Amino acid sequence: MNNRKILLNENEIPENWYNIIADMPNKPLPPLHPGTLEPIGPEALAPLFPMELIKQEVTPDKWVPIPDEVRNIYSLWRPTPLYRAYGLEKALDTNAKIYYKYEGVSPSGSHKPNTAVAQAYYNKQEGIKTITTETGAGQWGSALAFACKHFGINCEVYMVKLSYEHKPYRKTMMNTWGAKVFPSPSEATEIGKKFLQEDPNTSGSLGIAISEAIERAASDDSTKYALGSVLNHVKLHQTIVGQEAIKQLEKAGDLPDIVVAPFGGGSNFAGLAFPFLRLNFEEGKKIRCIASEPASCPKLTRGEFRYDFGDTGGMTPLLPMYTLGHNFVPAPIHAGGLRYHGAGVIVSQLLKDKLIEAVAHDNLEVFEAGVTFAQAEGIIPAPEATHGIATVIREAQKCKEEGVSKTILFNLCGHGNFDMKAYEDYFAGKIQKHELSEAEIKASLAKLNTPTI
Amino acid sequence: MNNRKILLNENEIPENWYNIIADMPNKPLPPLHPGTLEPIGPEALAPLFPMELIKQEVTPDKWVPIPDEVRNIYSLWRPTPLYRAYGLEKALDTNAKIYYKYEGVSPSGSHKPNTAVAQAYYNKQEGIKTITTETGAGQWGSALAFACKHFGINCEVYMVKLSYEHKPYRKTMMNTWGAKVFPSPSEATEIGKKFLQEDPNTSGSLGIAISEAIERAASDDSTKYALGSVLNHVKLHQTIVGQEAIKQLEKAGDLPDIVVAPFGGGSNFAGLAFPFLRLNFEEGKKIRCIASEPASCPKLTRGEFRYDFGDTGGMTPLLPMYTLGHNFVPAPIHAGGLRYHGAGVIVSQLLKDKLIEAVAHDNLEVFEAGVTFAQAEGIIPAPEATHGIATVIREAQKCKEEGVSKTILFNLCGHGNFDMKAYEDYFAGKIQKHELSEAEIKASLAKLNTPTI
Repeated sequence: MNNRKILLNENEIPENWYNIIADMPNKPLPPLHPGTLEPIGPEALAPLFPMELIKQEVTPDKWVPIPDEVRNIYSLWRPTPLYRAYGLEKALDTNAKIYYKYEGVSPSGSHKPNTAVAQAYYNKQEGIKTITTETGAGQWGSALAFACKHFGINCEVYMVKLSYEHKPYRKTMMNTWGAKVFPSPSEATEIGKKFLQEDPNTSGSLGIAISEAIERAASDDSTKYALGSVLNHVKLHQTIVGQEAIKQLEKAGDLPDIVVAPFGGGSNFAGLAFPFLRLNFEEGKKIRCIASEPASCPKLTRGEFRYDFGDTGGMTPLLPMYTLGHNFVPAPIHAGGLRYHGAGVIVSQLLKDKLIEAVAHDNLEVFEAGVTFAQAEGIIPAPEATHGIATVIREAQKCKEEGVSKTILFNLCGHGNFDMKAYEDYFAGKIQKHELSEAEIKASLAKLNTPTI
Repeated sequence: MNNRKILLNENEIPENWYNIIADMPNKPLPPLHPGTLEPIGPEALAPLFPMELIKQEVTPDKWVPIPDEVRNIYSLWRPTPLYRAYGLEKALDTNAKIYYKYEGVSPSGSHKPNTAVAQAYYNKQEGIKTITTETGAGQWGSALAFACKHFGINCEVYMVKLSYEHKPYRKTMMNTWGAKVFPSPSEATEIGKKFLQEDPNTSGSLGIAISEAIERAASDDSTKYALGSVLNHVKLHQTIVGQEAIKQLEKAGDLPDIVVAPFGGGSNFAGLAFPFLRLNFEEGKKIRCIASEPASCPKLTRGEFRYDFGDTGGMTPLLPMYTLGHNFVPAPIHAGGLRYHGAGVIVSQLLKDKLIEAVAHDNLEVFEAGVTFAQAEGIIPAPEATHGIATVIREAQKCKEEGVSKTILFNLCGHGNFDMKAYEDYFAGKIQKHELSEAEIKASLAKLNTPTI
């Protein structure tokens, strides 16, 4: 019997996060002030984030120490297991070797607590009493609720009203960890009241929820804001995933040819891929790192590299990113975590420099991949994770066609226990293809009047 | 940083199941034919179960080898982690040492696949094409669906119609693993049709669902039936849990004074406790093993030890058990897995002989315990598991009052990801105490005309 799982002990939890900026041949361009179009410095972020996270956002240091208290909370579920996917390999009849890193063992069921715990820690260090955030489907909100509970910080989550009403169980999960959850738009903020006045029956949007969370954080010195993806410090915290995977593969005497992860704002992909890119930079390895995005929200494969806002409302600085335009409204696919118009700045620069790759998958292809995986390996994957699985299946089939054996690693970033409605819809034939025409993408990008690069 | 998790490698998965009957000072009394009241032999079970499972049901052997193929599938999630509950200890401010074995890491999220995989394997060995079963809330049905998919066996699940309609996500989980799920009563069986004719709007019951599953299995040579608790072979398969825990505690240099597990039909409790009882039998240890039941279904603490039917419909042999009467209808508490009128025969005999203990907990006490645990340890427990946690908290508080330090181990038998409605009801103040009067219990038992012991 071969081992399926490669485990590490808690004392093997990495002691540093890896900052890829130190190794990038071309550093990301600076963010710009939307009014002056001048580069802005980290001080602009001070009203929203604690100083230590702002330092991490811009640090040139290659390694950032992980505080012992953070590693201690990580140990509730970390190191996460690395699986050899014998069942999937057999189901695909491939000669590829397939591994997956399983982040679904965290309390909230995804990779999100890796950064939530770190962010809550630094806020606590600086005396912050309350953290606000927005959440769509609830993965990020529940991770932050869990993390805040551990540090005795109040957590306020603005949850898009449509999700609040349709996904009550994620809300209850946040309540169980002591968070206050508001359907957004809410009466708790001025901007929320304004939107409610305009349309009392609005179902809300992530853009509005962000605005509410930011308003609350900006109006009170002991309250800060937290973001679950996109920003550099969030990607930094996630690099614990790939670092563990490298140690685990070393134990198995293996190294991947291909590393795959789903792509929303970039932190999931960054977490697994950046530590392997370090091996490319430092040791001249040629590991292919592939980001898997939905065909209905294809910023990496069909977007434009230019300055754009990080939010729909246009409140953030302008960021240099692959984007479909900040007003682009993705189709309502079940992989809510991948419905974002742009890509974080580090990942965008890496793609621009052809140091990483990207592929897009149709909605039906990913569900088929998810069911294949669930039947072969037992774990039912989150809809976001199925995008990575679809890429793995494509690459494994290529191996078969070409008669070569490659080693493929992917990030199984979360379980689908809270997403069974998505599978129900799939089995009921309710999942449709979402083909975007070239005209639709051009129309969205044509609305931008932000600087090109 | 002390280690929270004590892990084993896959080659440490036990090679045998432990059969406690071999060590019991008083063996369980034989089952009786309900008509003749004569003891019946294992051959009576042949229409429903494959021969190897019937042999296991009655074997006097102390150790039953676990087939390699079963251990191989176990390795998808086993060995499960043993946690030292540092967070809970701190929250309770106790000098007790608390450990928990976490079975929620299995694909379906509970301990049920331990026996589902074994049962599917033996059915496959004997050429069975289809396995039928009933399920209430869906924990057992989903475990069997997962196991059948691995062996290429068809799985038919009769799901109580009320649950089918109110818990669609468990149904979808079973569908994802390829099972056919029928709302019971269904048109697929004669008995189902009969009940539908009598009342087309019936919401079904576990008793009816069992009858449907048995009818299907009895009518076809290539179809058998599977049960998720109560029977000896089911308890046998679960002993893998306690055996792993012993190895893990040895690594920690520890041995529990108290072992706790929730009690429904007995397989959860048996799985953790029986291997520790072996240490009492063989080595003269004095480990207290406590079964935790709901106050609304208190067969162990307030039931009678006598012969009774295993099912509501009175179709099974008469079993010597602690029972509230097979017509007893437990209150609709959220811990669906503990709503069973009787206790398996082995556990009943052990309680009769005072070799184990039992306690009952009110509905509000267990939810409070569940939330305390979720906030301290991260994992949100299944409502069944919260009963064990409530016992642990009582014992830990006793330690504090008495100024002693005891080591307590409990079975965290599953996560609550599919039970958030229960927590929602709790936070909304909708959970009520279910006090059973002595008169209610007497009235239920007075209806029995089965043999006393």
